[in-house]
Amino acid sequence: MEIREFYDYCKEIAGYISAAALVEWDMRTKMPMKAAEDRSLVAGKLARTAFEMSTSPRMAAFVEYFNRPAVNAQLSEVDRRNVELETKQYRKISAIPAEKYEKFTVACSRGEHAWQEAKEKSSFAMFQPYLEEIVGYQREFVEYYGYDKNRYDALLDEFEPSMTTDEVRTVIDGLKTELVPFLRRLLDEGTPPDRSCLDGRVDKATQEKLSHDILVAMTYDLEAGRLDETAHPFTTPIGYGDVRVTTHYYEDDFTSAFFSTMHEGGHALYEQGMSEAYRWMPVRKCASMGIHESQSRTWENLIGRSMPFWRFYYPVLQEALPRFREIPMDQFYKAINTVEPSLVRTEADEVTYNLHIMLRFEIEEALINGAVQVADLPGLWNTKMREYLGVEPTDDAHGVLQDVHWAGGMFGYFPSYMLGNLYAAQFIAAVREGIPDLDDQIAAGHLGVLREWQRAHIHEPGALHDPRDLVMNVTGKPLDYRYFMRYIDEKYSPIYGLAPCGAGKGAD
Amino acid sequence: MEIREFYDYCKEIAGYISAAALVEWDMRTKMPMKAAEDRSLVAGKLARTAFEMSTSPRMAAFVEYFNRPAVNAQLSEVDRRNVELETKQYRKISAIPAEKYEKFTVACSRGEHAWQEAKEKSSFAMFQPYLEEIVGYQREFVEYYGYDKNRYDALLDEFEPSMTTDEVRTVIDGLKTELVPFLRRLLDEGTPPDRSCLDGRVDKATQEKLSHDILVAMTYDLEAGRLDETAHPFTTPIGYGDVRVTTHYYEDDFTSAFFSTMHEGGHALYEQGMSEAYRWMPVRKCASMGIHESQSRTWENLIGRSMPFWRFYYPVLQEALPRFREIPMDQFYKAINTVEPSLVRTEADEVTYNLHIMLRFEIEEALINGAVQVADLPGLWNTKMREYLGVEPTDDAHGVLQDVHWAGGMFGYFPSYMLGNLYAAQFIAAVREGIPDLDDQIAAGHLGVLREWQRAHIHEPGALHDPRDLVMNVTGKPLDYRYFMRYIDEKYSPIYGLAPCGAGKGAD
Repeated sequence: MEIREFYDYCKEIAGYISAAALVEWDMRTKMPMKAAEDRSLVAGKLARTAFEMSTSPRMAAFVEYFNRPAVNAQLSEVDRRNVELETKQYRKISAIPAEKYEKFTVACSRGEHAWQEAKEKSSFAMFQPYLEEIVGYQREFVEYYGYDKNRYDALLDEFEPSMTTDEVRTVIDGLKTELVPFLRRLLDEGTPPDRSCLDGRVDKATQEKLSHDILVAMTYDLEAGRLDETAHPFTTPIGYGDVRVTTHYYEDDFTSAFFSTMHEGGHALYEQGMSEAYRWMPVRKCASMGIHESQSRTWENLIGRSMPFWRFYYPVLQEALPRFREIPMDQFYKAINTVEPSLVRTEADEVTYNLHIMLRFEIEEALINGAVQVADLPGLWNTKMREYLGVEPTDDAHGVLQDVHWAGGMFGYFPSYMLGNLYAAQFIAAVREGIPDLDDQIAAGHLGVLREWQRAHIHEPGALHDPRDLVMNVTGKPLDYRYFMRYIDEKYSPIYGLAPCGAGKGAD
Repeated sequence: MEIREFYDYCKEIAGYISAAALVEWDMRTKMPMKAAEDRSLVAGKLARTAFEMSTSPRMAAFVEYFNRPAVNAQLSEVDRRNVELETKQYRKISAIPAEKYEKFTVACSRGEHAWQEAKEKSSFAMFQPYLEEIVGYQREFVEYYGYDKNRYDALLDEFEPSMTTDEVRTVIDGLKTELVPFLRRLLDEGTPPDRSCLDGRVDKATQEKLSHDILVAMTYDLEAGRLDETAHPFTTPIGYGDVRVTTHYYEDDFTSAFFSTMHEGGHALYEQGMSEAYRWMPVRKCASMGIHESQSRTWENLIGRSMPFWRFYYPVLQEALPRFREIPMDQFYKAINTVEPSLVRTEADEVTYNLHIMLRFEIEEALINGAVQVADLPGLWNTKMREYLGVEPTDDAHGVLQDVHWAGGMFGYFPSYMLGNLYAAQFIAAVREGIPDLDDQIAAGHLGVLREWQRAHIHEPGALHDPRDLVMNVTGKPLDYRYFMRYIDEKYSPIYGLAPCGAGKGAD
């Protein structure tokens, strides 16, 4: 058996995945509405074909052969990793009896519908039986998958390979101890920025140009991608040479599209930057969802909402929106960095965002381990919201029902959002070591300097390493939440008229 | 074996075809250029999957079972037709040894590349060896396919099912006798229209609105389709509820996009109008390429370049392009109906178009039967051009090398263009019997009246009937070229200041 045959087979699978990704992109951007029903059958069929090929007897033979110690030892690093990734996928999918997985996907599909209606009516009770069924499957699946210490490990692994529940909990416990009082101090003692300069309408055509131009400035390759509008912004790699982003324009809030374009652009740079040598290979994907999120957050927040960036870009903005000629840059900078505890995760700012994740992690981990039941969720949610953020939902729609993830059976995903923020802060500290004049480079508009660093250290390798190893390789240390604390202390304390409090001490 | 199982399998095949169609559409409209190489592999893979399923052992079993006389007799008309269409496809594809067909597709792919370069350099000699190889395969294939009287029948059948070479030749011989002298008289004795009113630039945005609005007026359903721009306009059915059209805007000739949008819109109405009951079935496709072309030509020419239509639409045009307020409608009408023998088929007008087809048919029929050789083509081409159109190419690029069809191995397709023109004229005569005030309805903007007639008689049935039966069902007579002659005589003689000469006599 030749490794070439294995790669040819992977390429076939990747072809179906590529087609499925294009069908999905089209469904969300271009497809006429009357095609929805039939097209989702096509999308499902393509995904199922790829899925079946990943567990076929042919793949079983590859897995068996290339994992023989004598054979495996002869493989190159990249070949070995590709075999490892496919083996993991094969074992994971094969672990669940097909008919049980089928029932689970039906339950999720029903669950999403029920969730939508329940959210509209703000009634958790309507959704509860559906969620109970989904959680039931997940509790069963973790037994099939297997785990070392914690049932939740088996779910987390799908999105953050090799990370354990204990590790996430350690990070969260530390972060919570610093972040909750930091937020309280900011709000109690600081002076909130005046956001009024952001008021006013900006027409869509102007916003489209702003989004397009910032992608170009970020060195996003428009010959290997495109920008479209959708209800919910997203990034999708259709295949080599084609990573597409979308954004959404609100005429009464131009910053929304601008920063979500930078966010998606950050995701897209990651996908565009993976090694061409890995074309069609399993390794040509993200190291983890958390690493992916670190790239989007870096561009959206660490760069996009930073002072050096606006030194470069404020004149461009003033050119596009002349009313900002009257507004000092500092005022604009503070306005786009307002901290406000809110009920909804997707509207959260840099400081409060992780608090939304902590409570979700704690709830789903307890749920999967049977420490809490589905019926307990609304009460638990509201208690934790008050404790971490100091605000409490008045209804389920803005509380426990706000996210679609659980309805779609996605348990274990939420931590990736938080890990993305933490990785980003730790990575940027490493960037500053490698590029001491980073701020000057950014202020001079040389965004490509950062992008090249990211490409070399993070983008090129794709999934060659698990995130744990990647973080170690790139920063020389394991994940440490204190980089994030230091970053927000140094940034937000001054914005709120306070001296930095020394949060995140010991990060270096 | 249940017919349901057969349909489920057809649906799976159709799913891959739908995905392939979307990938192709995307490649021509939206795809970033760097994805081209990998994406064409994906498109090829999807097409091949559908192809393989059409000749799989499973399909073989369906074909065998449902063609047993006792079983077949129990089927409904629609079921029987679906089985018949798949059987035909199965036998056709199975006839050619797979490795031979593979070599043929490679030869075609090489041929298209060589043709492109040869056309640029206007050198038939460069292309000749490639074309010889392709023709060699086609001569071999017709023996595998089998035929009754003429080798060319086997190729024609792919595009115009059940039509024979003899029938096409009879039509052409009759048409030629009337059309060649008609054209000569028009040019020698008539007064050509003044086209100068069409000069001047129209910006793209204005043209986009004109194209969009005419589709709406034609009752094209934009919730089941969309309009985009491409280098070469086309229509593609992606699946039920999704038939997309494209056009191309030339700022120095707005009529180009307008009429090509009407042309593609005509194709699209056909696809949108096929019975919903045939969703996912083999029968949900065109009866033939000629019938398809009849629908596009009807809207582009018989309606779009007619006086009643412009009674309705000239005010709309004048609103969009105010300079036409100075120009009498009659002058505009004549300008868009100028007849001019030209070297290039795709630029030909209604009167001369069929002459371009005749010579192609005669050449390819002789080529497949070995009556002429590839080396004879340039000479043959030029002689026939002079004879039929009175003009002669000065180079191969504008002569024998102008079309891609032969380079791509498409022999037998050209007659469909001509048949489309002839069907269209015969159909519209039937429409006039059913809707005696058709011209008044069109002039009043009720284009839907025609569309409803087309839907009921032509669109709904899809491929339920072969074109021969369809024409008989709809018009009560077999195909008769004289409807076309009568139509162009009655239209063009007056435009050229001549009395109609009575061409096409005996059509009714």
